[in-house]
Amino acid sequence: MDSLVKNVLADRYASESVKAIWSEAGKIRIERQLWVAVLKAQKKLGISIPQDAIRAYESQIENINLESIRKRELVTKHDVKARIDEFCELAGYQEIHKGMTSRDLTENVEQLQIYRSLSVILNKAVNAAQALANQAENCRNLAMPARTHNVPAQPTSLGRRFAMFGEEFLTSITSIDSFYKNFSVRGLKGAVGTQTDQLTLFDGDSQKAEALDQELRGFLGIPHTLQATGQVYPRSLDFELVSRLYQLSAAPTNFARTIRLMAGHETASEGFAKGQTGSSAMPHKMNSRSCERIQGFRTLLSGYVTMASNLAGDQWHEGDVSCSVVRRVLLPDAFFAIDGLLNTWLTVLNQLTVYPAMIQQELEQFTPFLLSTTVLMEAVKKGVGRETAHHIIKKHAIEEINTRRSEGILSNQLAERLASDPDLRLNSDELESIFNNIQNHLGNSQTQIDAFLHDMQNWVKKYPDSQNIETVSIL
Amino acid sequence: MDSLVKNVLADRYASESVKAIWSEAGKIRIERQLWVAVLKAQKKLGISIPQDAIRAYESQIENINLESIRKRELVTKHDVKARIDEFCELAGYQEIHKGMTSRDLTENVEQLQIYRSLSVILNKAVNAAQALANQAENCRNLAMPARTHNVPAQPTSLGRRFAMFGEEFLTSITSIDSFYKNFSVRGLKGAVGTQTDQLTLFDGDSQKAEALDQELRGFLGIPHTLQATGQVYPRSLDFELVSRLYQLSAAPTNFARTIRLMAGHETASEGFAKGQTGSSAMPHKMNSRSCERIQGFRTLLSGYVTMASNLAGDQWHEGDVSCSVVRRVLLPDAFFAIDGLLNTWLTVLNQLTVYPAMIQQELEQFTPFLLSTTVLMEAVKKGVGRETAHHIIKKHAIEEINTRRSEGILSNQLAERLASDPDLRLNSDELESIFNNIQNHLGNSQTQIDAFLHDMQNWVKKYPDSQNIETVSIL
Amino acid sequence: MDSLVKNVLADRYASESVKAIWSEAGKIRIERQLWVAVLKAQKKLGISIPQDAIRAYESQIENINLESIRKRELVTKHDVKARIDEFCELAGYQEIHKGMTSRDLTENVEQLQIYRSLSVILNKAVNAAQALANQAENCRNLAMPARTHNVPAQPTSLGRRFAMFGEEFLTSITSIDSFYKNFSVRGLKGAVGTQTDQLTLFDGDSQKAEALDQELRGFLGIPHTLQATGQVYPRSLDFELVSRLYQLSAAPTNFARTIRLMAGHETASEGFAKGQTGSSAMPHKMNSRSCERIQGFRTLLSGYVTMASNLAGDQWHEGDVSCSVVRRVLLPDAFFAIDGLLNTWLTVLNQLTVYPAMIQQELEQFTPFLLSTTVLMEAVKKGVGRETAHHIIKKHAIEEINTRRSEGILSNQLAERLASDPDLRLNSDELESIFNNIQNHLGNSQTQIDAFLHDMQNWVKKYPDSQNIETVSIL
Amino acid sequence: MDSLVKNVLADRYASESVKAIWSEAGKIRIERQLWVAVLKAQKKLGISIPQDAIRAYESQIENINLESIRKRELVTKHDVKARIDEFCELAGYQEIHKGMTSRDLTENVEQLQIYRSLSVILNKAVNAAQALANQAENCRNLAMPARTHNVPAQPTSLGRRFAMFGEEFLTSITSIDSFYKNFSVRGLKGAVGTQTDQLTLFDGDSQKAEALDQELRGFLGIPHTLQATGQVYPRSLDFELVSRLYQLSAAPTNFARTIRLMAGHETASEGFAKGQTGSSAMPHKMNSRSCERIQGFRTLLSGYVTMASNLAGDQWHEGDVSCSVVRRVLLPDAFFAIDGLLNTWLTVLNQLTVYPAMIQQELEQFTPFLLSTTVLMEAVKKGVGRETAHHIIKKHAIEEINTRRSEGILSNQLAERLASDPDLRLNSDELESIFNNIQNHLGNSQTQIDAFLHDMQNWVKKYPDSQNIETVSIL
Repeated sequence: MDSLVKNVLADRYASESVKAIWSEAGKIRIERQLWVAVLKAQKKLGISIPQDAIRAYESQIENINLESIRKRELVTKHDVKARIDEFCELAGYQEIHKGMTSRDLTENVEQLQIYRSLSVILNKAVNAAQALANQAENCRNLAMPARTHNVPAQPTSLGRRFAMFGEEFLTSITSIDSFYKNFSVRGLKGAVGTQTDQLTLFDGDSQKAEALDQELRGFLGIPHTLQATGQVYPRSLDFELVSRLYQLSAAPTNFARTIRLMAGHETASEGFAKGQTGSSAMPHKMNSRSCERIQGFRTLLSGYVTMASNLAGDQWHEGDVSCSVVRRVLLPDAFFAIDGLLNTWLTVLNQLTVYPAMIQQELEQFTPFLLSTTVLMEAVKKGVGRETAHHIIKKHAIEEINTRRSEGILSNQLAERLASDPDLRLNSDELESIFNNIQNHLGNSQTQIDAFLHDMQNWVKKYPDSQNIETVSIL
Repeated sequence: MDSLVKNVLADRYASESVKAIWSEAGKIRIERQLWVAVLKAQKKLGISIPQDAIRAYESQIENINLESIRKRELVTKHDVKARIDEFCELAGYQEIHKGMTSRDLTENVEQLQIYRSLSVILNKAVNAAQALANQAENCRNLAMPARTHNVPAQPTSLGRRFAMFGEEFLTSITSIDSFYKNFSVRGLKGAVGTQTDQLTLFDGDSQKAEALDQELRGFLGIPHTLQATGQVYPRSLDFELVSRLYQLSAAPTNFARTIRLMAGHETASEGFAKGQTGSSAMPHKMNSRSCERIQGFRTLLSGYVTMASNLAGDQWHEGDVSCSVVRRVLLPDAFFAIDGLLNTWLTVLNQLTVYPAMIQQELEQFTPFLLSTTVLMEAVKKGVGRETAHHIIKKHAIEEINTRRSEGILSNQLAERLASDPDLRLNSDELESIFNNIQNHLGNSQTQIDAFLHDMQNWVKKYPDSQNIETVSIL
Repeated sequence: MDSLVKNVLADRYASESVKAIWSEAGKIRIERQLWVAVLKAQKKLGISIPQDAIRAYESQIENINLESIRKRELVTKHDVKARIDEFCELAGYQEIHKGMTSRDLTENVEQLQIYRSLSVILNKAVNAAQALANQAENCRNLAMPARTHNVPAQPTSLGRRFAMFGEEFLTSITSIDSFYKNFSVRGLKGAVGTQTDQLTLFDGDSQKAEALDQELRGFLGIPHTLQATGQVYPRSLDFELVSRLYQLSAAPTNFARTIRLMAGHETASEGFAKGQTGSSAMPHKMNSRSCERIQGFRTLLSGYVTMASNLAGDQWHEGDVSCSVVRRVLLPDAFFAIDGLLNTWLTVLNQLTVYPAMIQQELEQFTPFLLSTTVLMEAVKKGVGRETAHHIIKKHAIEEINTRRSEGILSNQLAERLASDPDLRLNSDELESIFNNIQNHLGNSQTQIDAFLHDMQNWVKKYPDSQNIETVSIL
Repeated sequence: MDSLVKNVLADRYASESVKAIWSEAGKIRIERQLWVAVLKAQKKLGISIPQDAIRAYESQIENINLESIRKRELVTKHDVKARIDEFCELAGYQEIHKGMTSRDLTENVEQLQIYRSLSVILNKAVNAAQALANQAENCRNLAMPARTHNVPAQPTSLGRRFAMFGEEFLTSITSIDSFYKNFSVRGLKGAVGTQTDQLTLFDGDSQKAEALDQELRGFLGIPHTLQATGQVYPRSLDFELVSRLYQLSAAPTNFARTIRLMAGHETASEGFAKGQTGSSAMPHKMNSRSCERIQGFRTLLSGYVTMASNLAGDQWHEGDVSCSVVRRVLLPDAFFAIDGLLNTWLTVLNQLTVYPAMIQQELEQFTPFLLSTTVLMEAVKKGVGRETAHHIIKKHAIEEINTRRSEGILSNQLAERLASDPDLRLNSDELESIFNNIQNHLGNSQTQIDAFLHDMQNWVKKYPDSQNIETVSIL
């Protein structure tokens, strides 16, 4: 007991729905569902199996006694055998696992765990996209300096910035969605993949062996079946899975990093839960700990990508178990990590606090820099030569920035400098009318926000369950 | 000169078509094509550009003088500026790069390089799939022991083994193909992504700014355009690209590793080029050096996956150049590596040598083990109890394997052992008829091979250029 | 309960001693030891702390009630605070955690967990090196074909092959040992690393603040203290740790892979535990599942290397918690994985079965090829021109190998071919005397084995506890 | 020519000294040096080699004609053979490569390239540590807010922050230095590692074969020799190398990231080269492009770590060439990347611009928050209860921060708030005297800076050539 070590990702960060898939009990449940699905398919294809047996097994699926199974395992020293015995005794029949090898069970069970986890993740991702869209809508007109190289560059709106992360996020949802839609289950292929054992069961009837795979697919609700796997399905499919989960982490991490940066400028913060306070010693501190944690989940996922990349392309002949210990860790932990990431991101999105007054401060300091090309054009309209205008603006801008930094003056006097230079031919009023109308300089921001909102709505229609996802209260 | 370091992947392994895309000259060519495409789109949308100018630029695209450009760069200290000046002087006009920032050029050029490289890779991959399909067809009926855990397990056919790798390979082609079909170019988005500069060019007409992106897309032949990027397009798209290239390396590496293993048993070898001999000191050696190299390319790609994973999700605000040096290496080298891998694999597939007599040797040594369950069933048919039959077979099998290994006897005497055990009720003739008809025990191998061949044909139809790919003679 | 997810690495593969360090209870134990160490150091440096208080805390270190702590946490919503309260109530004093911030506790506790785990791993690694040395000694004179490119090349001895892996393994032990010896604890540095809080405690006496760190180091038994950390110690130290653990996995994986390859040739197997049988369906199969699992652990570690590499060089200013969730997984799991790998390897090393008769078979098939250069020299001594001799040998070797493979003849007739060629001037007896004395052609194998055994003995002297490591019975 | 692809890392970022080691000509130079070293060692051990021959070869080492070698290679189709022929013809002797296989040449040459590159890197790293130390000394007393979670926390000095990165950097230098000092060359071990060919050369005298390795080591200046390698030296040594190079990148990247963050607050910038200006469109912009590039190099190195991790632990028997294409890329590119990183960092360190007035601005905004615990203590001294004082300070701090952010007021009025609260018993003067003496609140910063400077000096003594490193002007 002293040495019990829990899976820290499941214990602290994952949602009940994902844990229920990967817990010991959850795995047994799916295993039993698979056995029953095979029974039904075999019966349909003419194998003599009593209908009562199927009912009996079905009724016992949820009757999971881990203690009893463990006791059997201590006797049989074989985990699959122990679970077969338990299920059969509960049902009072000896009908399951006919013509199946261990891998016919375990590979398909793991794929079902993956497939169901993907459904949870996809719905949660669409839900998060919607929360992000709400923030993009809220901050649609909140002008602010866009930053490149972490320094102010041109104007944007905060809503437009969110749409930028939103478009990237939808791209990664597309990537997972396509994997989900093309998901192919290994099916019942026997010890080396030739379906010899299934053929034997059907007295060599190859069409029935194939039909069994198709029936099974139908029962499981998985769209496709692989044809020619070895003992194991190709591990490049695991890499495909994990790399797409990783891709899904990119936009949230970009968002979170940008919030961390904005928090340093006090223009936004991830907010506090009701009742939460900052550091007790330093009460002014509002730490972006959830945003930092989002990055942490991405780092975990990058490690799982490496593990999965090691499995892909490492098959010897028809396969072996060098991937086994890896996948026992990799598959659940990758799902716990992406689930934890999305749970955390949803919390941040819902509690996000923006400080418009601080953004206004920033704008006041930088607007004349952000709009220097507009000033240039206006001067040209007044008849100043393009090169002349550029030279004048640059001279004053550099003087201004040098004065600012050497003297620590935060107010921006570039407008005054430019107005006082007769060669630029723009007076204070003209300059003020440029600098005071930042909303006119947000480019195509509105259209871009609308494009994101529109695409997002299509995803909501595709994943209607995204409207009813489980609420997870993060640590 | 003494310190010239060539790109070793390009120099030794990549094909001319891929090098032509990523070489210095190749990049300039694509850059010029892009400028011309923008000119045409701008003209179509009403910007006043002389038709002669477009023709003049177009006529100079291939007139690439690296020396002249370098001289300009030494003066301007700005590589893009130097290339603008060179192209303009050649054309005799000053029309290109209007309303564009550096990233409007470089991001789109890099995406074009990617897009065109993908086309080469996809066609080559389909070609390789076909070469593999030919081998699967050739070895369709060549029975051999399938191996799990690297030891003989059940019978399979070599063609069926190839179909197994083939199915995995087609899965990865699907993954790349889907990326290619959904490819989205960044388009002209300006310094922070808001299209401010494009709007200015079109006097604030937002529809024209969008139309410009669409026109450009049409000229380039890329199917989609991103809406709301920052300074840079999302780097998770680079990760998506590289991880899918990695996925493509999995099946060839599995194939190559299995050939390396088979070479150790002398059942197959990657063959020799005409005139090539083995090690001069050890003339019997036929080293699977090309198969080993395939694994090497996979290892390189795994490193590029890690690099790309570091870029994805690492954006600050609207972007910066922390990805720049990485992408200068990552993008070309990842393509050189996958191209080199496919070139090498094609060579192996075309020179592959199989040794049926050695496979027969292996079968003779192991057939009775491989078919022990068939013996069991036959004994049961004769009225022997299942458990009794299992016990008898197991006892003799273990004695046989122990004798074999402790005495180094390669011929298999399990048949004799079983025939001499009256409790099993099977005589020599009966056992021989089982063991001599290995073709009856290949399960669904034929169907599985056919399924692969059928899917492969669809890819050939989809990528007809796969029939005419460049031949690369590997080192 | 249904959703309890255990840490699968701890549950299935790690030893009690490592689990005891990283379990929830184990962490609390180390935390309390650290608090007591700080108390003692503070008292020694003049802070008024009752001796009885120290004794009281010390007596309660092992009195760990996870349930009680959890209840407190539900009230305080702060895990460190809950554990402080519990420990104080048990001791009946309020003296711990003076002048400490949370990171002063958690960073040092984690480093202690690492340091103690390293001690377990180092002793176990030396123990494994010794088991490998025993096998090298046992197989010292067992001649066999060395293989390069997986095909027979020149003679070696199996003991010499083991020494090859042994030397690599000792190199990696050196790497870990050096990290262990230079281990530097963060010490008490306060919220941003400046030791402000410690200085306050000692009324600004900077020497006492430093002395506190030194005392703490002494109590903990860690050799060095960092001077100028931020809130956190540099995460490149975590990368250093994990990359060296990874390095330690290389030689065992090389060994395991080579055993897997040898199992395919039936020259060795990882053996069976007493009573274990192979596949029930295929009783001849002895699967190298433990060797495969060793590779699995290496793959896991490669993922942890990637995670740690993401943490190194990702510090913002004085630090934050973006590493937190990563290190909660990475640190224990990396130790569980390397521990599981060593436990598995020790089992394989102790059960390893070698089949000399099968090795002899292999030698008989390949010896004339392996010694072709010796034949060449003997022919030259007889006056045959070097080039002539080379030409003759090569011709016969290639004919022999072609016949072998095209006809499936396993016996080697190269000797006969050579003897029958008068131009080579070597008769059957002369050739036989070369081919029958393979022991004369093992080069420096004996010296190389001795060198490994000698180095290994030095490590045993350095880590005497390696003689008494916990026995772990693997699944 | 159109398709020439240069190694972009060498071409743009690496120094001449590193390029000279890895260029085609550089490799040939080292190869010839090795051949001559072997000749000398063989002669010393009694092999009959004319002294004139050694002189003749030695005189031709620098006479490298790549064109002539290429022509030979087109004939021989064997690169090593072509280079042997060229060198022999230049020297007029046929004495080199006696008793050597290809790997006896290539493995040792690559190790020499590594060893010499390490020397360049170590000296450059020490030089960079010194440049960092100079900055730490310069900014020793420049008080500023330390930031955790990217927000102001407690006071530090900028010099102390640099010392923090400095200590981490010295730790990573220790790691590389230790690898360099323990560097072990493979030596001459023959085709499978048993030294059979060397023994033959010395008529079976095993001591002479060992002495040859020792002599060679002496000639090469490498401290150790491996004893029992296979065809190749253990690739875990390549992983050890690359992971330590990666570790070296961590502190510079932490430094660079922090400068990028500071640039966002205008408290520091990486500076401009003489004559350089910011963005032409946005003249106020000073982009941290070199700091961003430093991170880029770290990302590249993370990919090389992954590649090297794939090679370590992937040996089959005595070895093969699956690592070959990987190491052709990995080894030079990893050195080019770390060299480029150090070159860039040195440039940043030498041009670093700090803006004390902007830092002062930041301090004025945050000092009362940073010193809230000091205020607490002073209030307690005046007789206010600890909990009361904490409550009062927290209330005002939160009000202040809320007002600040909701109204965009950058001046800090916490002092006024506190002074006006009679319950805290501190008047304006007393509070001012706390807040105006930030230098008193830098903790042990001075001592910590001194510790770093002291350690750094030891490295300068150890690597005196660090004082004379090549200056590289970065792009």
